[in-house]
Amino acid sequence: MVFMRFRPQPIFSSLCRLPKPARTLAAPPLAAARRRFPAAPLSSSCSHMASASPSEDALRRALAERQAAVDAQAEAVRALKASGAQAGVDAAVEALKALKVEAGAAARRLQAAVGSGGGAAREELRQVIVNTLERKLFYIPSFKIYRGVAGLYDYGPPGCAVKSNVLASWRQHFVLEENMLEVDCPCVTPEIVLKASGHVEKFTDLMVKDEKTGTCYRADHLLKDFCKEKLEKDLTLSPEKAAEFKHVLAVLDDLSPEELGAKIKDYGIVAPDTKNPLSDPYPFNLMFQTSIGPTGLSVGYMRPETAQGIFVNFKDLYYYNGQKLPFAAAQIGQAFRNEISPRQGLLRVREFTLAEIEHFVDPEDKSHPKFADVADLEFLMFPRELQLSGDSAKLMKLAEAVSKGIVNNETLGYFIGRVYLFLTQLGIDKGRLRFRQHLPNEMAHYAADCWDAEIECSYGWIECVGIADRSAYDLKAHSEKSGVPLVAHEKFAKPREVEKLVIVPSKKDLGLAFKGNQKMVVEALEAMSEKEAMDMKAALDSKGETNFQVCTLGKDVVITKKMVSISMEKKMEHQRVFTPSVIEPSFGIGRIIYCLFEHSFYTRPSKSEEEQLNVFRFPPIVAPIKCTVFPLVKNQEFDDAAKVLDKELTAAGISHIIDTTGISIGRRYARTDEIGVPFAVTVDSATEVTIRERDSKQQVRVGIDEVASVVKELTEGQSNWADISFKYPSHIGPQGDQE
Amino acid sequence: MVFMRFRPQPIFSSLCRLPKPARTLAAPPLAAARRRFPAAPLSSSCSHMASASPSEDALRRALAERQAAVDAQAEAVRALKASGAQAGVDAAVEALKALKVEAGAAARRLQAAVGSGGGAAREELRQVIVNTLERKLFYIPSFKIYRGVAGLYDYGPPGCAVKSNVLASWRQHFVLEENMLEVDCPCVTPEIVLKASGHVEKFTDLMVKDEKTGTCYRADHLLKDFCKEKLEKDLTLSPEKAAEFKHVLAVLDDLSPEELGAKIKDYGIVAPDTKNPLSDPYPFNLMFQTSIGPTGLSVGYMRPETAQGIFVNFKDLYYYNGQKLPFAAAQIGQAFRNEISPRQGLLRVREFTLAEIEHFVDPEDKSHPKFADVADLEFLMFPRELQLSGDSAKLMKLAEAVSKGIVNNETLGYFIGRVYLFLTQLGIDKGRLRFRQHLPNEMAHYAADCWDAEIECSYGWIECVGIADRSAYDLKAHSEKSGVPLVAHEKFAKPREVEKLVIVPSKKDLGLAFKGNQKMVVEALEAMSEKEAMDMKAALDSKGETNFQVCTLGKDVVITKKMVSISMEKKMEHQRVFTPSVIEPSFGIGRIIYCLFEHSFYTRPSKSEEEQLNVFRFPPIVAPIKCTVFPLVKNQEFDDAAKVLDKELTAAGISHIIDTTGISIGRRYARTDEIGVPFAVTVDSATEVTIRERDSKQQVRVGIDEVASVVKELTEGQSNWADISFKYPSHIGPQGDQE
Repeated sequence: MVFMRFRPQPIFSSLCRLPKPARTLAAPPLAAARRRFPAAPLSSSCSHMASASPSEDALRRALAERQAAVDAQAEAVRALKASGAQAGVDAAVEALKALKVEAGAAARRLQAAVGSGGGAAREELRQVIVNTLERKLFYIPSFKIYRGVAGLYDYGPPGCAVKSNVLASWRQHFVLEENMLEVDCPCVTPEIVLKASGHVEKFTDLMVKDEKTGTCYRADHLLKDFCKEKLEKDLTLSPEKAAEFKHVLAVLDDLSPEELGAKIKDYGIVAPDTKNPLSDPYPFNLMFQTSIGPTGLSVGYMRPETAQGIFVNFKDLYYYNGQKLPFAAAQIGQAFRNEISPRQGLLRVREFTLAEIEHFVDPEDKSHPKFADVADLEFLMFPRELQLSGDSAKLMKLAEAVSKGIVNNETLGYFIGRVYLFLTQLGIDKGRLRFRQHLPNEMAHYAADCWDAEIECSYGWIECVGIADRSAYDLKAHSEKSGVPLVAHEKFAKPREVEKLVIVPSKKDLGLAFKGNQKMVVEALEAMSEKEAMDMKAALDSKGETNFQVCTLGKDVVITKKMVSISMEKKMEHQRVFTPSVIEPSFGIGRIIYCLFEHSFYTRPSKSEEEQLNVFRFPPIVAPIKCTVFPLVKNQEFDDAAKVLDKELTAAGISHIIDTTGISIGRRYARTDEIGVPFAVTVDSATEVTIRERDSKQQVRVGIDEVASVVKELTEGQSNWADISFKYPSHIGPQGDQE
Repeated sequence: MVFMRFRPQPIFSSLCRLPKPARTLAAPPLAAARRRFPAAPLSSSCSHMASASPSEDALRRALAERQAAVDAQAEAVRALKASGAQAGVDAAVEALKALKVEAGAAARRLQAAVGSGGGAAREELRQVIVNTLERKLFYIPSFKIYRGVAGLYDYGPPGCAVKSNVLASWRQHFVLEENMLEVDCPCVTPEIVLKASGHVEKFTDLMVKDEKTGTCYRADHLLKDFCKEKLEKDLTLSPEKAAEFKHVLAVLDDLSPEELGAKIKDYGIVAPDTKNPLSDPYPFNLMFQTSIGPTGLSVGYMRPETAQGIFVNFKDLYYYNGQKLPFAAAQIGQAFRNEISPRQGLLRVREFTLAEIEHFVDPEDKSHPKFADVADLEFLMFPRELQLSGDSAKLMKLAEAVSKGIVNNETLGYFIGRVYLFLTQLGIDKGRLRFRQHLPNEMAHYAADCWDAEIECSYGWIECVGIADRSAYDLKAHSEKSGVPLVAHEKFAKPREVEKLVIVPSKKDLGLAFKGNQKMVVEALEAMSEKEAMDMKAALDSKGETNFQVCTLGKDVVITKKMVSISMEKKMEHQRVFTPSVIEPSFGIGRIIYCLFEHSFYTRPSKSEEEQLNVFRFPPIVAPIKCTVFPLVKNQEFDDAAKVLDKELTAAGISHIIDTTGISIGRRYARTDEIGVPFAVTVDSATEVTIRERDSKQQVRVGIDEVASVVKELTEGQSNWADISFKYPSHIGPQGDQE
């Protein structure tokens, strides 16, 4: 069900290494409730980095000592001057200067340690990338001519093409290869569905209001910003105070509204825009609410995830699949979250595309027939033990992770492996991809295990895919609410004899003995576990009576032999009826795409070395345009050849651009490198062309009639550039790279 | 902008042939306003069928005459009996019987003429199709376990696959082949955008409420149902009354709320469910409203169409396209309309997928360079002249329609041709596809021309694609509201001299003369047209003064020569700045898919002729699953071969099913015919298989290693079945069709 709310990891990972207090591990009820929805990667990411960096601590103490020395020496200078003693003043002043220099150096060292680290450089790089993306219309703030709406973005032409390529790859990699049942359900969802799932009650963030203007803020964001600002900018902070702020950051998502409100008051946090006082925090539901039909009486919401559409169809899908488990259903579609104050560009938006898989499996058999296909993969894993011990993610073989029980079961492991293959095939850098396990306090109580695929970008480690074993929770919730059993059957080859506990209270005798309390005693007897019942039976058989605690009465009562009959009876069962477990890989497509943009971006000098040229090294399957066609010079012959190529590429379904502008080939290359076009076809004869590969800038000569099939092979992955450059003669000519 | 609201044509086309009264052609203001949005195909479809069928009229008169004869004879019989005269009674009774037989026959003839015609058969066929579709999970009422929500449907696995194939074809056929700029904008839209487009004010339907229960109904639906019911079921209706009801049906969409309310009162129409009285009709806005952000102050709507997202991005897209016209942008996405009372299954829903194209073009040059590619296409066209004269659609060549000015311009014609190719390539039956031109009163006042691709299905002729030349309306509306000019430039090769009117009022002299009214006079002077200004200049030059009507003052004033200077001045212009026209093909994907289901469906007897088998004859590009693989019998050799095929088909991206159930090949064929799988591969040796084509049931023998490439060629359209059956040996063996 629940795709983890996308909370990016804090950038300042070194800042929150306080050990997580036991209290938050045994989270208070409210925190636990919130955790089921926006299960809070923040607290976890803090907890695994929660041991205070010793050097930072030492640096704070060193600075405080040097500052104290400066203060003392300054006092001494003042005293000397006041005493009128000319002698020694100069020396004292010199000493003061030296101490100040030392204190300054200590401050700089601390600043370097606590500051945003590579933050400035990262932000600068991000700005270059974001500028390129916006200039080239990869994305556009929505409704820009009306000054936009926070958290809403359009994909412009190249962005839209990248998105459709990513979705097509996703369909090929998951739906087709795993024979999943893809469905397509509406966004408008009636309230009852989201009541059953728990979203109506619990899909909230805590909000505070500017008491004068009514402007709203996310309470945890204000507190987080305050603590981070203090830790980064206030060099005079005592190590104790610094530890306190780090602790707050670590437990932020487990704070109750009251605790959060108290911190805000304690620290004197006010509205950032007006400095007005703030209201107490209260929960704000993140779903966009609407009304279905004309009466205004039927509440609906824009779905916050696509999974519910699959769960409510479980029964039909199970029958469609021939009543066989396991099977998976999948859905790609829009989801909506009315964020209180969206930030971080494409990473936290109010409407986004999710691609979700619900793999239904027998809870008693979570093996996977194709696990062997991924068992040997090795990549960065970050199990909870490493997080809790303050270590970092390490390379691990999937087979090992599953066999050691680090990953709960084979099916979960299989999907982790498939997600790894999917992301890296798109062009996500293996070195900046890790699978992080949820800490116990991050997971919903019903979840068996949960891993996030996190991708590192300029905003830090970003949760892009959640892969959770959610046990039977979702199907049970909808069974209960709808009254329709969402269960699977396992027919036994031959009927099995089973023993079943049968407890038959004698209502007559209990009524005589307990009068008005009879009902409570009957219920307590019927609720006994097998062990309790068999113990009672033994006691009754031997002693004729026994004491029995009835919680609802708050006391013990005496039960005699005639009041209850307890036995184990044998029955023949023909099938097992059970609620399947669901394993849910859930993909935030927009986040994956944004990280892909960052991982694919690089710059290289132009040929004249006068400027830096931007390049996106998208793999061919992802590239928005697969090739460009450039007639070398304007003439009829080349234009005709370009037209032929246009037709052939179109027929082959290859997106391409014909660029007949008269500008130099080098500039034309630069222009298409900037939107990540992998292959450029320069038409320099009527029969043969030059194909140039974007990253190596290598060129080969290919006959015009072969171009479409060569580019198709390259973009569909049947061959790679090495194959092509081996097969066709290479070329360096006047139409070579002019960059 | 506006995709025509999907109003299906009435099924009972022969019923509304009254000539359309002039009044509705010159529609009253409100009707005109509504027309801009839910531009009303209903009224038009009625108007082109509005001449009353003479036979029906004659039949009504014949029935009335015969009924009168029966009544008279019955009276005569009663009189005879009362007179006690035994003689003649038997003969009179015999005559009465004969008259009753005649009247009965007349009633049946009338019933046959006015009844739903083939309606019963059509509904029966629809029921068979819909049952198959729902049983096979092509679609599912959404949230079924919670008893569903009217107007919301899920696509189950085969439906979802058909939908993605249709969308992929659309992308290939339009976006790729025409080099369109595809964008992807959010569904959540701020109010200001939809105020500019006019939706907030005018995207409404008229609604009435049950005065006691509050249940809501669409006012026009109630009136329509009443009139249709009367016309079909009430055989005693006088020809005059019948004509009145037909007239009401014809003008239904042009009725003002007051007129609609008066009719409802006149006819005594009550709430269908309770028979309670109804409220007066009032407009209900069809957009789902919501609130953006946490304050509750920022109104938003779920977009009712995708077009606005393109218009607001015009400026960026124009620059992206190198500031060249024409170019087209496209978008596929969800749209939302909160229908008052959805009916007709997939045809009128509350959430649906639209695919829209906005082709921006210089209003002074609407030629299209590729028009020649479609000029020779010939298909059913239904220009307004034919509709108004009561004729039916006729085959026409596109070139002729454009050259005769029936279709307004080449670009519009080009898109009509491309839409025709797209729909027929999906499998829409040419004989049940027509292009119907909007009548003048159906079109928005600013539209230059508008054609709907209508597809006939069991619900009648359904508007599935709207193709409109919307002139500059949408860009101008957003320019005005946002203050951002959404214009294009045409740079002149050399500057051109133009004359421009310059009016300079002398505020000082006007102030002296008109005091507080000065401002109104200044504005009136500045607002003069060129002709008015030149007339005034002539009068002032000759007489020194002239009378001048100032509307805002409600009177004439005297203007003297010194109060205003009027001149034509010459200026050099370097470019022309203009608002492009937009030609908008807008596709209701769900409607196209539903019609495709109906057009693709047929039944054929099983081999034993004991039952009818259902088949969907989807073309390979549309088919949800491209092929099935059946090991003929269960053995290791065939299972291994099936596994190899599975891998190869997956690698080739071909959706397929491996069916290893032990049932007969014939039943396995029947099962997959029912979801429209075009090719079945029966594994009956380790090296060769039999491929069977669904509709011809022909079989060929193909080597196992060739299967994936053969199926890929077939599904991608590089070859067709004829090519394959020519190339490979045919086969009739024991694994032949068991049907």
